[in-house]
Amino acid sequence: MAVTIHPIPGIPILAPGDDLQEAIFAALDAEGLALEQGDVLVVCQKLISKVEGRVVDLDTIEPSSLALRIAAQSEHKDPRLVEVVLRETNRIVRMDRGHLIVETGAGWVCANAGVDSSNSGAPGRVVLLPVDPDASAMRLVDAAASRWGCDVGVIITDTFGRPWREGQVDFALGVAGMAPLRDLRGTRDIDGRELCHTIIAEADALAAAAGLVMEKADGVPAALVRGFSLRRGPGSGKEMIRAAEKDLFR
Amino acid sequence: MAVTIHPIPGIPILAPGDDLQEAIFAALDAEGLALEQGDVLVVCQKLISKVEGRVVDLDTIEPSSLALRIAAQSEHKDPRLVEVVLRETNRIVRMDRGHLIVETGAGWVCANAGVDSSNSGAPGRVVLLPVDPDASAMRLVDAAASRWGCDVGVIITDTFGRPWREGQVDFALGVAGMAPLRDLRGTRDIDGRELCHTIIAEADALAAAAGLVMEKADGVPAALVRGFSLRRGPGSGKEMIRAAEKDLFR
Repeated sequence: MAVTIHPIPGIPILAPGDDLQEAIFAALDAEGLALEQGDVLVVCQKLISKVEGRVVDLDTIEPSSLALRIAAQSEHKDPRLVEVVLRETNRIVRMDRGHLIVETGAGWVCANAGVDSSNSGAPGRVVLLPVDPDASAMRLVDAAASRWGCDVGVIITDTFGRPWREGQVDFALGVAGMAPLRDLRGTRDIDGRELCHTIIAEADALAAAAGLVMEKADGVPAALVRGFSLRRGPGSGKEMIRAAEKDLFR
Repeated sequence: MAVTIHPIPGIPILAPGDDLQEAIFAALDAEGLALEQGDVLVVCQKLISKVEGRVVDLDTIEPSSLALRIAAQSEHKDPRLVEVVLRETNRIVRMDRGHLIVETGAGWVCANAGVDSSNSGAPGRVVLLPVDPDASAMRLVDAAASRWGCDVGVIITDTFGRPWREGQVDFALGVAGMAPLRDLRGTRDIDGRELCHTIIAEADALAAAAGLVMEKADGVPAALVRGFSLRRGPGSGKEMIRAAEKDLFR
């Protein structure tokens, strides 16, 4: 069965306290799209963070001495931005050549703790990653069930770089209503040989796929994926974070 | 515009020297799918490798002393498999806890140099990564132009694990007929702020998206992506490999 990825344009720029569900559902209505059983709704993290008030004006930030020293090692880092990054950081994974790759409080490993100036709404303002995107996703699952009477999966995404590869793709931070991983260990390949290592990161693949239609600069911060064989389940984006003790690159 | 990902089932198990193009095109015909301008054809590396003879029977391999010592450090590594991996390796990036993450001759960084026993066609046989998947992709671009008179993009994929994340997704190894990266540096975000770092890894996102319908154990080793705003160009999968000197994780 074919999988179709619909962009969801027409979501207005939102501010803290705005009704995210209503904004997304109105945009779906305007596209003539009603959510159906097994659909996956994918929403860009920035939309969530703005509604949840995870924005910081750098004017309000006093950089620590460490932030000042880190910023001084780079040509174009604002020490106040570095300070915000450090406040979101559990540990620094790499600090080299002007890059700051960290493990965030929630456990994601990414550049600058995901703190980002783009599409922030104002100069000198930055957007942080959501505190609990699983909960944000779950609220959308519940709202979809109320509105359309169907079970959908919801994924909250952000765009990250990767080691070894040029360019960025979208990853799943928050997940609800679906299993993010598909464990094929113990199943058989086409020759009947047992698979020993294969676990498919379906939520990350869905996030990357949705990224094909989410043009953030053009105001398309969400997408609807239809036709994917969703594995229903409680699910959490945390299942996708490799534990530090199993990770060869921390 | 919506993006649609069609699975291409019905491709038979191929052997060295078989006609890959004919096999894929016949499968498209059977699905009632004719390639159109701007389509992206995504093909699993294993199909390419088998046709191009990149298979090795481990019975023919004499492990070196290094391969024997590496295998002895792991509970379940076959020293002959380790030997095949080492022959495909430029440098070892991590060797720890039974894992062997290497840079291959072609430059990809992945576990076991991409050498894989699954769906190999016979017990004790392994499949290597293609030598030049850009060239394999280009042959399909040319064949599509001959058959349907249209310009398509072609991506050859493999399934890799990632640092920091559980599970595996599909990545683009070979690319032809399209630009694999979309450089947004210098464009403006929704607030009019200039983007300084954003390069989208479109070929990897397309590979991951195609992976949503490519069920390898069920014999779906290819997919057709339609509706994506392809950036035409010569393109090469090598553009997606971060140079070692820019990479913080080698």
